[in-house]
Amino acid sequence: NDLAAGKAAFDKYTCASCHGADAKTSTMPAYPILAGQHQDYLEHALRSYKRGAAGAPASANTRKNAIMGAMVAQLTPADIKNISAWLASLPSPLAVRK
Amino acid sequence: NDLAAGKAAFDKYTCASCHGADAKTSTMPAYPILAGQHQDYLEHALRSYKRGAAGAPASANTRKNAIMGAMVAQLTPADIKNISAWLASLPSPLAVRK
Repeated sequence: NDLAAGKAAFDKYTCASCHGADAKTSTMPAYPILAGQHQDYLEHALRSYKRGAAGAPASANTRKNAIMGAMVAQLTPADIKNISAWLASLPSPLAVRK
Repeated sequence: NDLAAGKAAFDKYTCASCHGADAKTSTMPAYPILAGQHQDYLEHALRSYKRGAAGAPASANTRKNAIMGAMVAQLTPADIKNISAWLASLPSPLAVRK
């Protein structure tokens, strides 16, 4: 995982527009808090949106969402890993989950 | 929103088996932290799993997941609202998101 690359990708793909620069102050309550969430889950979610946007069959483990589908279509597997690692590492309240 | 009913439904449907009794100590990193997440987002996620399990067309805003699809198929709209409200209200680290 490359945390600096993850932050750079988060910025490059303007994720902050919806999720907030700190990834926990989203602009709408329909958008989730990401900071401190598990890396595995975040990677899974991003890959699911990617499958959904790619037209995977309805039987696949996909997420269909117009905004996230368009965003994630641009991401490489490395982007997904690095962004998720960076989000999971953020010193957010969620990160202190013990 | 009925927080007590939300907690009761969380218990009844054994959500804790995967997400932890406190909804933030999940048993696998692939399962998300729920405590303190936005109520709106949680309701949206649950409804998306429900649409996915119900065989909504691939163009719909769905989530396809075998475990969550089976769980959510049992939930009423009131369950979804109450569980989400209870999760959002939990005194978790995520809840202190300012």
